Amino acid sequence: MSDTEKQSLRLNCDLGESFGPWQMGDDDRIMPFVDMASVACGFHAGDPLVIQRAIRFSKVHGVGLGAHPAYPDLQGFGRRSMQLSRSELIAMLHYQVAALDGMAACQDVSLQYIKPHGALYNDMMRDEAILLSVLQAVADYHRPLPLVVQATEQWQHHQSLAQPLGVMLWFEAFADRRYGDDGRLLPRHQPGAVLGIEQMLGQVQQLMTTQTITSLSGRTLHVKADTLCVHGDNDDAIAGVKAIRELLASS
Amino acid sequence: MSDTEKQSLRLNCDLGESFGPWQMGDDDRIMPFVDMASVACGFHAGDPLVIQRAIRFSKVHGVGLGAHPAYPDLQGFGRRSMQLSRSELIAMLHYQVAALDGMAACQDVSLQYIKPHGALYNDMMRDEAILLSVLQAVADYHRPLPLVVQATEQWQHHQSLAQPLGVMLWFEAFADRRYGDDGRLLPRHQPGAVLGIEQMLGQVQQLMTTQTITSLSGRTLHVKADTLCVHGDNDDAIAGVKAIRELLASS
Amino acid sequence: MSDTEKQSLRLNCDLGESFGPWQMGDDDRIMPFVDMASVACGFHAGDPLVIQRAIRFSKVHGVGLGAHPAYPDLQGFGRRSMQLSRSELIAMLHYQVAALDGMAACQDVSLQYIKPHGALYNDMMRDEAILLSVLQAVADYHRPLPLVVQATEQWQHHQSLAQPLGVMLWFEAFADRRYGDDGRLLPRHQPGAVLGIEQMLGQVQQLMTTQTITSLSGRTLHVKADTLCVHGDNDDAIAGVKAIRELLASS
Amino acid sequence: MSDTEKQSLRLNCDLGESFGPWQMGDDDRIMPFVDMASVACGFHAGDPLVIQRAIRFSKVHGVGLGAHPAYPDLQGFGRRSMQLSRSELIAMLHYQVAALDGMAACQDVSLQYIKPHGALYNDMMRDEAILLSVLQAVADYHRPLPLVVQATEQWQHHQSLAQPLGVMLWFEAFADRRYGDDGRLLPRHQPGAVLGIEQMLGQVQQLMTTQTITSLSGRTLHVKADTLCVHGDNDDAIAGVKAIRELLASS
Repeated sequence: MSDTEKQSLRLNCDLGESFGPWQMGDDDRIMPFVDMASVACGFHAGDPLVIQRAIRFSKVHGVGLGAHPAYPDLQGFGRRSMQLSRSELIAMLHYQVAALDGMAACQDVSLQYIKPHGALYNDMMRDEAILLSVLQAVADYHRPLPLVVQATEQWQHHQSLAQPLGVMLWFEAFADRRYGDDGRLLPRHQPGAVLGIEQMLGQVQQLMTTQTITSLSGRTLHVKADTLCVHGDNDDAIAGVKAIRELLASS
Repeated sequence: MSDTEKQSLRLNCDLGESFGPWQMGDDDRIMPFVDMASVACGFHAGDPLVIQRAIRFSKVHGVGLGAHPAYPDLQGFGRRSMQLSRSELIAMLHYQVAALDGMAACQDVSLQYIKPHGALYNDMMRDEAILLSVLQAVADYHRPLPLVVQATEQWQHHQSLAQPLGVMLWFEAFADRRYGDDGRLLPRHQPGAVLGIEQMLGQVQQLMTTQTITSLSGRTLHVKADTLCVHGDNDDAIAGVKAIRELLASS
Repeated sequence: MSDTEKQSLRLNCDLGESFGPWQMGDDDRIMPFVDMASVACGFHAGDPLVIQRAIRFSKVHGVGLGAHPAYPDLQGFGRRSMQLSRSELIAMLHYQVAALDGMAACQDVSLQYIKPHGALYNDMMRDEAILLSVLQAVADYHRPLPLVVQATEQWQHHQSLAQPLGVMLWFEAFADRRYGDDGRLLPRHQPGAVLGIEQMLGQVQQLMTTQTITSLSGRTLHVKADTLCVHGDNDDAIAGVKAIRELLASS
Repeated sequence: MSDTEKQSLRLNCDLGESFGPWQMGDDDRIMPFVDMASVACGFHAGDPLVIQRAIRFSKVHGVGLGAHPAYPDLQGFGRRSMQLSRSELIAMLHYQVAALDGMAACQDVSLQYIKPHGALYNDMMRDEAILLSVLQAVADYHRPLPLVVQATEQWQHHQSLAQPLGVMLWFEAFADRRYGDDGRLLPRHQPGAVLGIEQMLGQVQQLMTTQTITSLSGRTLHVKADTLCVHGDNDDAIAGVKAIRELLASS
């Protein structure tokens, strides 16, 4: 993440999503191609050994380590919305971020950012009260860490919420997901919601050159993005990430 | 814990043992009478809100905060022995200590020590391989923290295990528990295992003045103790702790 | 539950809500005064030993045993709404009801009904899709069991949803909670939401004699109730239940 | 399982071992080749949806359904020994078996047997007090179900423990594991502990024809087996099970 080019569109990937005997993803294979690893903190995935390993991989590959906290729901993988009070949410975020932060420090790795996972991420983008709770949690954490939020046309409004709390936002766009006219991602189960590799590369190219994304119905969304979310769950996905990496390098 | 007197026999108490809707103990009432609060880290008790509150109380009362990590067993309250691998144990200790450590830092409180809980505590006192794993975990933590172990006649041997790893030991005696001839506590369910207030004060007096404890059958155990474990679960227990506090002050 | 009088307004109480080392309620003391025990199934409270004990108490006191299934959320005590898919919800209800049902059979006790707990109960009363999922789960269970739902002015509509599925409904009113004009309970944290003993007895008397409840603002709600929800968490609550029991007996 | 041949050496396989988003094994592919499916009950693996699906597959393929209860340890996959009291163990077994039993009944499937999993299985074969607790749990279950235990040279002694409690034992041998001289399996991590396909078929052939197994050092173990444990985790394993199936059919 040293040069200006990469910093303008760093690749981030969710990692450390195994649990106990169950494997998910292939952390070691995707790490070489991404800039930021958002590591599960044990509430929706990840156990202490899995976390330790993900930190080690991120160190070996020089990838920036992020905390990927979630609702306390292993069975639902943090994808089921839960109604938590503001104080529960803040305490729960501190617990998860602190656990990862301290485990990283045990390996001389410095945690670099926080990105909420799954339903919590969607809920904070949909419900300003929840976003404010998340922002407060980040503001109250014992050292400043940027918060990753979705890059939308409301980015300036989100900025205006974060600034008084002293929280830096990193805006995230999605490489392989189709956007609706409202700037939200189409639900994953909807046909056409997940892009093939050619469409994905087209979307990334457009985002890099014009800072826009074209929605399903053809609307032009103005999207200021600092980072691009990619996935590395299988061979095809990893090939896609390599292709994006080349596209970014060549531009 | 500023003056020499108190430091020579500081009172420690297990706290933060509520979970969700379930209350245990009365953290706010016992805090004024103890020097060290060993706070559950979420694996055998404690949830993020409970932990946050215990840290706040420890700060208000100027009580030294300790991490009280345990086997991952809420239902069994960490009292059921579990066979973990060395690497599982170390990672699990880092996770719990880091979570508490970071949450404490969010309130400008500095974690001061680590005391394993329940079956993990008993297992490390019984099985040197487990003690070595715990010592390694403490040694590998990202900053030095003393480890509380039971004060036994093997204290010099334990010291010799800890020293090469750079781990400081704090030795703990028990105020209200009867010792066996082998220097272990009688199992809690055994008749006479838990002392009444008069016997407890006698045991503490003897420990303070002669650094010995008399076992059930009359053997004199030489016990070098830095800290005394007390309990504050109910009115009687709290009265007992107050009496010990007065005894310590008057001596 | 043998005579007609009692069956027309049976008292039900949530029980078996301890977990591991944590006690909640006083199952043994309240049992003599109620007709139906809704026992937690291990997802929001209750562990196998707690469940076994609650079944034993219900047998000793001749109290009808019900399953009290909930969202999978121990820390939140099943009081936090969770977004589950229809198939998840149905499978989760079968698992919990089956566990309690089979454990009851081990003590020659026959499970008599199902009453969803906490947020799940509220969600099914608020969202017809969730109610339909719950009804389907009850219909698909391997033997017919009545479902307890809140007695509201929509009771005939709810009846019309249950009947085609062959599910019998038992309607439940609340003794100690203030109703809003819309027939819902005031949220527990709102001032005046929980009635004192005199008001509670007045509400029960009115319900018995006129099948109505007067809302906070004075609206008369027509409420057909088969059973009355009471609580036995502490001495005052138990005294209240005794008083209701006497009121029912004298009428 | 209708004809005498198959019943004399039925193939059993552990199934339903996925959890939430995490897949394990390939239940649908292995089912056609086995006679008995031991399905996880949610404590070491399996969630309500996973269990429901495993029951459905076992019904489609006409495979006998068994309960595969375990210690409450998802993260450790039930492979970590835990010290439970006798009453905890019995209640915990009832809960798990009842959950599976009732969920099976919802699909008109009748549960046929109980086989403890992982560390619980090993512990009951190693420690007679634990075996007696398991036997008591099976005896106290509300309907008679056979218990699967390992086939060892102590089988008559195990029989003599089970008979007074009215529990039928099914003895299990292992197709793909090397035995030690003491009749126990070599620990999985030891070199040579897991047999290749040729050795496995040889061991099965010998078991079928002579009711013996040759240990690592060449000792002849007399092993009376009713069922053979096989695994279907991957393509090779499934190929091995098919080969065993053909061997059984041809003999």
